[in-house]
Amino acid sequence: MLKMNRHLFFITISICIVPILMSAQQAYPASYDSVSQKIVATALGENKAYDMLYDLCTNVGARITGSPQAAKAVVWATDKMKELGFQNVHTEPVMVPHWIRGHEEGSFVVNKSKKTKLHLCALGGSVGTPKKGINAEVVQVKSWDELKALGEQLKGKIVFFNRPMDRSLVNPGTAYGLAVDQRGRGAIEAAKYGAVAVLVRSMSTRIDDVPHTGQMRYDSAITKIPAAAISTNDANTLSNFLAKKKDIRVTLKLGCKMLPDVESANVIGELVGSELPEEVLVVGGHLDSWDKGQGAHDDGAGVVHSLEMLRLIKELNLHPKRTIRVVLFMNEENGLNGGMAYASQQRPHEKLLAAIETDNGGFSPRGFGVTDSVTQMKLVRFAPLLRFVGADRIVRGHSGADISPIEKQGVPTLGLQVDMQRYFDYHHSDSDVIQTVNERELELGATALAILAYVIAQEGI
Amino acid sequence: MLKMNRHLFFITISICIVPILMSAQQAYPASYDSVSQKIVATALGENKAYDMLYDLCTNVGARITGSPQAAKAVVWATDKMKELGFQNVHTEPVMVPHWIRGHEEGSFVVNKSKKTKLHLCALGGSVGTPKKGINAEVVQVKSWDELKALGEQLKGKIVFFNRPMDRSLVNPGTAYGLAVDQRGRGAIEAAKYGAVAVLVRSMSTRIDDVPHTGQMRYDSAITKIPAAAISTNDANTLSNFLAKKKDIRVTLKLGCKMLPDVESANVIGELVGSELPEEVLVVGGHLDSWDKGQGAHDDGAGVVHSLEMLRLIKELNLHPKRTIRVVLFMNEENGLNGGMAYASQQRPHEKLLAAIETDNGGFSPRGFGVTDSVTQMKLVRFAPLLRFVGADRIVRGHSGADISPIEKQGVPTLGLQVDMQRYFDYHHSDSDVIQTVNERELELGATALAILAYVIAQEGI
Repeated sequence: MLKMNRHLFFITISICIVPILMSAQQAYPASYDSVSQKIVATALGENKAYDMLYDLCTNVGARITGSPQAAKAVVWATDKMKELGFQNVHTEPVMVPHWIRGHEEGSFVVNKSKKTKLHLCALGGSVGTPKKGINAEVVQVKSWDELKALGEQLKGKIVFFNRPMDRSLVNPGTAYGLAVDQRGRGAIEAAKYGAVAVLVRSMSTRIDDVPHTGQMRYDSAITKIPAAAISTNDANTLSNFLAKKKDIRVTLKLGCKMLPDVESANVIGELVGSELPEEVLVVGGHLDSWDKGQGAHDDGAGVVHSLEMLRLIKELNLHPKRTIRVVLFMNEENGLNGGMAYASQQRPHEKLLAAIETDNGGFSPRGFGVTDSVTQMKLVRFAPLLRFVGADRIVRGHSGADISPIEKQGVPTLGLQVDMQRYFDYHHSDSDVIQTVNERELELGATALAILAYVIAQEGI
Repeated sequence: MLKMNRHLFFITISICIVPILMSAQQAYPASYDSVSQKIVATALGENKAYDMLYDLCTNVGARITGSPQAAKAVVWATDKMKELGFQNVHTEPVMVPHWIRGHEEGSFVVNKSKKTKLHLCALGGSVGTPKKGINAEVVQVKSWDELKALGEQLKGKIVFFNRPMDRSLVNPGTAYGLAVDQRGRGAIEAAKYGAVAVLVRSMSTRIDDVPHTGQMRYDSAITKIPAAAISTNDANTLSNFLAKKKDIRVTLKLGCKMLPDVESANVIGELVGSELPEEVLVVGGHLDSWDKGQGAHDDGAGVVHSLEMLRLIKELNLHPKRTIRVVLFMNEENGLNGGMAYASQQRPHEKLLAAIETDNGGFSPRGFGVTDSVTQMKLVRFAPLLRFVGADRIVRGHSGADISPIEKQGVPTLGLQVDMQRYFDYHHSDSDVIQTVNERELELGATALAILAYVIAQEGI
């Protein structure tokens, strides 16, 4: 061994070791641990998130923008915030699209003179068909290249987009992202070649009879053709028919249409900060849903997560230093007008610290996605507080659609991450109902939000 | 700053820093990462675990020890292992209890001459009632102290154990552990004071009409009295009746009885190690279930987790160095005879490295509980391989009942930990059916097992 000045050696060791030991120490007041534990014990013991969600799902139900149910949801949320004692409860107006499904919706395929009903639903925003329906030959495509190669052969045809979500991926959200382009711009791309309608395989890895809707788009320069989702079972059946026989015809009837825009609202309530009320943390989800099922996971869960988050902080008399504001956005599903309206509103006397969205369903929490690495680095020290509820992954990631306009203004944004394995079984479909929500998983999501919101309201960002 | 010999300073810094950097480096061959990814992509893409569980649940069904269905399950598992190409597939005999529920099972409570039916089921192992039933006054107790204080007043009464699982705890397994003593020794303790029967609040935090069975015990020196579980809804109702009126009588009819022991079997198959075949890792779950529902989560999930774990390793031609053996134990629920038989069997030419049990349901994996800290420390370096499936928590914890006899012999044991929030909604009841299992969550559990089993088979412990 080297001959070494022992004194110097130990000093140098200390220089190395001390910061390591320091980093291993708690980076926050010890009281935060007991606050976190109280939040969780109160939440799981009282189970209020599920009661609220049950009420929203069964007494309001599905609440697509422009519908009477969406209007009822605004009243429901306002009343609920007042009942929970939130401060400054108010609505902020938002103009929203008013698309209706209409009554007629049906489809069948004829193969060798045998008629098979397809389980289908119009995609959100689609134009309807003529009253007698559209009857045409079906052509299956799985990629944009395939579509392009077929080109003029698609004239007069129904294009059937049948690229499945890649079920081999661990994150079904990634699989959704890689498949949803078919739903989003399928009608535009198919219409370019003269197609008369599109059918899209439902965005789900589950093989069943339930069709899943979701937003589709048009291009003002290109003919608007009707677009519908068919169930994954029917997509497989249709694909099998086409593998054996070319001339397969489908009849498609859709009664949907777009009506004039309607005034709706974001619903807002808060707990004013005890020391720095002008510094604001926004936490929210979206109040609207699609018109299928009950919008239980998407995003009834996010709505009650946000309400329950603030209820817990109030219930425990925590009086955080900075303001925590719940914003329930209108029109996430088909326009994002609520998110844009909130972001464009001038609020000159306040400083927006950050915004957190919860829009991934009422499943067990796993952590938070943070859109910028600086904020991620600042918040990661609080991960130990979230570990006992399984929500300690503070990672770079997407936050949420409603707060993306705020994010563009340079505000740090975060998204609650949950265990999403079941999400696309229900998403945008008649399966998204309260019975698929587990009360404990739902409540744990609210606790993760409450712990992080409290800490941010105490510490700032 | 101290005047310091620069050369010495940097040497000392290096002495400090190098081990830190080394610990941050990967502690295993880089190939393990790609193996893990292949395991997961194959598993989620092929989805075989769900198919196997569907088959077990619907074609075999509930399979309590001694029943024809349990015998069918032994054949099913043997055939399945052969079909999957496992090596040395065989059964090892186990004598098991043969308790049957019988036909008559019913109960009602009379309050102010109004008769209300109770949703109930006999606890496993209970004696039956006389054919005409037992009619007696009900006394509610929530603690052993309360029972003791009531003492002789319990003579001729039905004792109603109504201490709920503590829903405010994050881990429902802990809440179960703190409440299940009522089910286990309620009949013994109540009979000491001359009680004629016991009713136990079902072990679930969900408030519904479904009763949950489970094992109860007798003491040979104390009168055996009948014991049944009632649903959580009925427990609340009965408790409300008792709060208003003392003399509430229940009539209880149970047709259950114990028949002579039956020969059954553990089912075993393996993949022989390519280099060190005598070193063996055991992975297993239990083949028996209660006679309610389909035993889908408890422990059909563990059965198919274990089968799928080895199927994946074979499918990917991984040829691990050490032997991986699947053991499907018989009689976990009411005797543990399978676990004890496996442990007591002499296997002189082999060295048992470790055993892993999966018996917490087919939910998203979270990690592994390890019963000794030395093994935990050795395995924690592999956690990064499990992170992308969310199973990277290698913590001190319970392993599994079936492998507890092996653990007593000094063998390291582990248990797959999953997200258990929904588990006690289904456990030991008619709700434990295939419809409550999500195919992706189930499959991910198998991938966590396959990754860890492969690594242990390569590296040893």
